[in-house]
Amino acid sequence: MYQVDLNSDLGESFGRYTIGMDEKIIPLISSANIACGYHASDPVVILESIARTKEAGIKIGAHPGLPDLMGFGRRNMAISPAEAKAYTLYQISALGGMCQANGMRLQHVKPHGALYNMAAKDYELSMAICEAIRDYDPEIIVMGLSGSEMIRAAKDCGLKAASEVFADRGYEEDGTLVNRRKEGALIKDEDEAIARVIRMVKEGVVTAVTGKDIPIQTDSVCVHGDGEKALLFVEKIRKALTENDIKIRPLAEIVK
Amino acid sequence: MYQVDLNSDLGESFGRYTIGMDEKIIPLISSANIACGYHASDPVVILESIARTKEAGIKIGAHPGLPDLMGFGRRNMAISPAEAKAYTLYQISALGGMCQANGMRLQHVKPHGALYNMAAKDYELSMAICEAIRDYDPEIIVMGLSGSEMIRAAKDCGLKAASEVFADRGYEEDGTLVNRRKEGALIKDEDEAIARVIRMVKEGVVTAVTGKDIPIQTDSVCVHGDGEKALLFVEKIRKALTENDIKIRPLAEIVK
Amino acid sequence: MYQVDLNSDLGESFGRYTIGMDEKIIPLISSANIACGYHASDPVVILESIARTKEAGIKIGAHPGLPDLMGFGRRNMAISPAEAKAYTLYQISALGGMCQANGMRLQHVKPHGALYNMAAKDYELSMAICEAIRDYDPEIIVMGLSGSEMIRAAKDCGLKAASEVFADRGYEEDGTLVNRRKEGALIKDEDEAIARVIRMVKEGVVTAVTGKDIPIQTDSVCVHGDGEKALLFVEKIRKALTENDIKIRPLAEIVK
Amino acid sequence: MYQVDLNSDLGESFGRYTIGMDEKIIPLISSANIACGYHASDPVVILESIARTKEAGIKIGAHPGLPDLMGFGRRNMAISPAEAKAYTLYQISALGGMCQANGMRLQHVKPHGALYNMAAKDYELSMAICEAIRDYDPEIIVMGLSGSEMIRAAKDCGLKAASEVFADRGYEEDGTLVNRRKEGALIKDEDEAIARVIRMVKEGVVTAVTGKDIPIQTDSVCVHGDGEKALLFVEKIRKALTENDIKIRPLAEIVK
Repeated sequence: MYQVDLNSDLGESFGRYTIGMDEKIIPLISSANIACGYHASDPVVILESIARTKEAGIKIGAHPGLPDLMGFGRRNMAISPAEAKAYTLYQISALGGMCQANGMRLQHVKPHGALYNMAAKDYELSMAICEAIRDYDPEIIVMGLSGSEMIRAAKDCGLKAASEVFADRGYEEDGTLVNRRKEGALIKDEDEAIARVIRMVKEGVVTAVTGKDIPIQTDSVCVHGDGEKALLFVEKIRKALTENDIKIRPLAEIVK
Repeated sequence: MYQVDLNSDLGESFGRYTIGMDEKIIPLISSANIACGYHASDPVVILESIARTKEAGIKIGAHPGLPDLMGFGRRNMAISPAEAKAYTLYQISALGGMCQANGMRLQHVKPHGALYNMAAKDYELSMAICEAIRDYDPEIIVMGLSGSEMIRAAKDCGLKAASEVFADRGYEEDGTLVNRRKEGALIKDEDEAIARVIRMVKEGVVTAVTGKDIPIQTDSVCVHGDGEKALLFVEKIRKALTENDIKIRPLAEIVK
Repeated sequence: MYQVDLNSDLGESFGRYTIGMDEKIIPLISSANIACGYHASDPVVILESIARTKEAGIKIGAHPGLPDLMGFGRRNMAISPAEAKAYTLYQISALGGMCQANGMRLQHVKPHGALYNMAAKDYELSMAICEAIRDYDPEIIVMGLSGSEMIRAAKDCGLKAASEVFADRGYEEDGTLVNRRKEGALIKDEDEAIARVIRMVKEGVVTAVTGKDIPIQTDSVCVHGDGEKALLFVEKIRKALTENDIKIRPLAEIVK
Repeated sequence: MYQVDLNSDLGESFGRYTIGMDEKIIPLISSANIACGYHASDPVVILESIARTKEAGIKIGAHPGLPDLMGFGRRNMAISPAEAKAYTLYQISALGGMCQANGMRLQHVKPHGALYNMAAKDYELSMAICEAIRDYDPEIIVMGLSGSEMIRAAKDCGLKAASEVFADRGYEEDGTLVNRRKEGALIKDEDEAIARVIRMVKEGVVTAVTGKDIPIQTDSVCVHGDGEKALLFVEKIRKALTENDIKIRPLAEIVK
């Protein structure tokens, strides 16, 4: 039997500012990455996000980011491993405690934006993040870019690791994402993107930008809820997965 | 046998900014109120504060404040009860998780500065704060101004409440603190201040600014570590307490 | 000849967060209040807002607020007059310099949200804000609630004062706004609201919530661009003003 | 006649947090770089800093930094040139307007910390910063690392450029600073450091870490006021400069 998790970022509003169509993406996913108040969100938004997620019966992950609200956590910052560990522990503790107070618990942790991208290539940074997770709760699953340093660090740390893939991104032969400024970075054709996801799940293979097939571990697919087009695409993926006998299930049932 | 807790604010540094002489006050107190990143502190400072407190063997409390770093949480802000609950839950979760990751746990929660003062007079606000604490962990002790709305809310919420007194502040007949702008707000004579503390602990009585004796519950005395003079005063209090057969013990051993 | 200014808040987005439909409200107003980075906005948003406003040929005012991004500057904060002066000077300097670098200059300053409301009732706070404006550029017009302490302080400070009225709000007999929690706070009927504006401009009179007519100085009407309904209402007001021979002109041409 | 400027960072306190011994370093320098509220400082601190600097009769420069208070602006952040331009313009406008309101004006702009270091090696980033300065006031002097991209961009932008040197840092043959992690990064002997400064000013030459003499333009020397040792070193430099017939003068009298 084939299975995969669909994850999306959630709870990225802040104060009077709204981002995302959370109530529309929630029914379409199995795991939600909830922002923790550094790159986005605030305590009131977090409580609303937990309540919505709980009601929908999907799983919660913490989505810690860089302390850069103005840049939405998307700009690389030269933080030290000790800072990365402390920032991650602070954010997952905050979200984890707020979940616990509402009868939920953290299924996974997925770093956000620039922290995710920097960690994917930096074992030491990944290890710092993983240590924070392990110290907080060693049962939590680490979600990282498939084949990245984050996955390697999670395993070295004794944590369960979930490999994430992107439907709409091109891959280099070494499994890294094609740089957004290069040709082939984006898979623009939706049907092609979906066919690639099906193949990643069923065969564990994706065609790199060079044309060569490479192996790829696929536990979760990243989807977005920040627009009508994105939502329609998620519905299309869901339909295709079902038609191809791939079950959509939360990470905790896939990564053991 | 007489006993009392000595508490002090701790971990109020931020980034490259230092406040307080934490390493000097720690050996003199039994409970520390650690800032949680809103009015002061950051995750790196929190980890250092937990490590120091753990090493010294004293108890940790969370010291949540208003989201006003520029004002050090000392300026009243018209936050709603829902916001107060969310901000408190976020901060105590963050600190609580970081404690847990380091083999410690929260003994108590004491709101900081303007949040403490506003809550003392506002039952609804106090209740919002107490609900956050109860939802997070009903074993945590709430520390509030002796005789205040916070103590009342804590009890109504089914939480253990610790009554805090101030050595250097005058009291009105109704048990509230004399406004700082009024005559009698500060007890400037150190010996008088200490004699008042002894009497509060042993007799449960303090002389109000009007000259009338009033009852006062005394579980913990607030002390400060922000200067050499303050530190000397704490040593003086400790000596006087010991000479008067009053044992200095952490809150958890006093409030049950 | 009758004339009035239409003003709206503008440039309230922040980082990846968007608020308001700036490009739609700009053609409908004569003066824009641009957020300065405390309660909303950031330097990139400010530059965009200045560019849009410049292109449309409307006048710019600074819209300084409280340092409370999470609360959008809408929560009262107990800042001191010295802090109010410094915060105002900082924000109007930042916006004023960015205008100057783009060939524009500040026409007016209108405090935002809670700062506006607190100042309306607090002469000392109003004076602190006005001193900041006067020290920066005594030619700038102060916009405040008609009949408020802000108008009084502006005049005492030797500054030009513009009196603002609200189409959709009820007034007490003393000229203050009816508290939002009370009956009569909102004028829900659009035609009634517009008729009141026409009368305020032409006769300098408004009917208070008690039924009594009171005098009201009317230099500018506050309108909103945060939704389709709000935009339609502004178009309706514009039409009614024109039909009633009231010219819509920027503050600088009205307050001299 | 030989002459040089002595500059130091100033006004880096924030809210209740104090950094630096401003009142002690001010009498020893000719130009002050005042923080603008991003990496350090707040509006109240800025006003105090301007007042102190004005009273002492020294010149003011703006010291814009990255939006990273937690990291004191010392951590590289991948901001775009457009963001760098906007952030710089915002900060120098804020400080410049506050100076103007107090009868002062900006002599120079020196980027802080990581922004300074990133710009030194990045012409595009330097150009963005210089454009902000030019748009705000083309008479302002740009201070940058001697021989860096910042100096090149300032000149290309038509701005006056001031070359800054460091007494206690080693130089590579290409004029860049020796990386702090490498041997020779710091000149630990104070007398050697001072002798190097004298030679840089008089001969325009410094001995690189390789032993080779290289040319170096020297308009200003960076000094520090963050401790007793640092202050004593500044006094020592001042004495040595005077004994060597080198006049200490503000930048504006040196760079024309």
